[in-house]
Amino acid sequence: MAPLVPKSGDAVFASVERVNAELFTLTYGAIVRQLLTDLEEVEEVNKQLDQMGYNIGVRLIDEFLAKSNVSRCVDFRETADVIAKVGFKMFLGVAATVTNWDAEGTTCSLVLEDNPLVDFVELPDTCQGLRYCNILSGVVRGALEMVSMKTEITWIRDMLNGDDAYELRVKLLKQVPEEYPYKDDE
Amino acid sequence: MAPLVPKSGDAVFASVERVNAELFTLTYGAIVRQLLTDLEEVEEVNKQLDQMGYNIGVRLIDEFLAKSNVSRCVDFRETADVIAKVGFKMFLGVAATVTNWDAEGTTCSLVLEDNPLVDFVELPDTCQGLRYCNILSGVVRGALEMVSMKTEITWIRDMLNGDDAYELRVKLLKQVPEEYPYKDDE
Repeated sequence: MAPLVPKSGDAVFASVERVNAELFTLTYGAIVRQLLTDLEEVEEVNKQLDQMGYNIGVRLIDEFLAKSNVSRCVDFRETADVIAKVGFKMFLGVAATVTNWDAEGTTCSLVLEDNPLVDFVELPDTCQGLRYCNILSGVVRGALEMVSMKTEITWIRDMLNGDDAYELRVKLLKQVPEEYPYKDDE
Repeated sequence: MAPLVPKSGDAVFASVERVNAELFTLTYGAIVRQLLTDLEEVEEVNKQLDQMGYNIGVRLIDEFLAKSNVSRCVDFRETADVIAKVGFKMFLGVAATVTNWDAEGTTCSLVLEDNPLVDFVELPDTCQGLRYCNILSGVVRGALEMVSMKTEITWIRDMLNGDDAYELRVKLLKQVPEEYPYKDDE
């Protein structure tokens, strides 16, 4: 059998089941509103959204690996590229750009200029400090942890706070070497 | 200009922005889990999901009318058909069937055999009585209210409770005649 060739983000996105983005956006908005009502503190809402995202990420990675034909990435640079071009496209329908690498190749930014999570969203003044899209950083963190990369992820630009794009700073903290009980060619 | 022709559910679904269905399913699952934690009582969770759906429905109707080119339906029968064939398809990617009309033509069932909300969902025994998909009935109720139809909607079959399909019973309670400050041909 010929080896599986990794698919482009567009190809993967075309091959998965999809739902209407506006329904998703409004449903996500309902979560955030619910959390704001229940938890009151914006900081607590940020934490909870991140945790929800993390729980989703640890599950989505399976669909990602199964549908994208992506196999082990050689390094964090390649991983970041795959997340941006294939991962974001496959789940949100929009790709991100990878930029602002540090010299060590362990920290980079994922930049989104279009973000279906925030369509029609305007934050009232009472929501200062809310990281509305924190679920996304949680998803990335959770998914990466499942492939043995522990990361720290922070938002450094946010269009809901008046910035010109969304920028997620992704820092690789630790990479646990994967150990297999069998050899690759067995 | 030629009059706009109503589009099929497939055509509308193809024309809207979409996101990955699994992301949506897991995100929705996160809401339900959050509500179960926060509200504790299953009955309260059902109410809250319905209310969230209602709030979403009153907004989604605008996108529905704008994208589907559907104009005023002649009666409730036609309305139910449009919801099932165009509405469900446009938002969830799956169409419903309309069935079990009563003699008066004011109550019918919408049957879904495939429902992206519940992929991978299994309810633990502690969730007896949970109407996991209550957001959907809320959406339909909210959207119909925006076109002057007050309805009562109940689930009578639910695959998560072991039934062979999802069946929503939709009862038209009151239809407020629309009054326009202008004539149609002005």
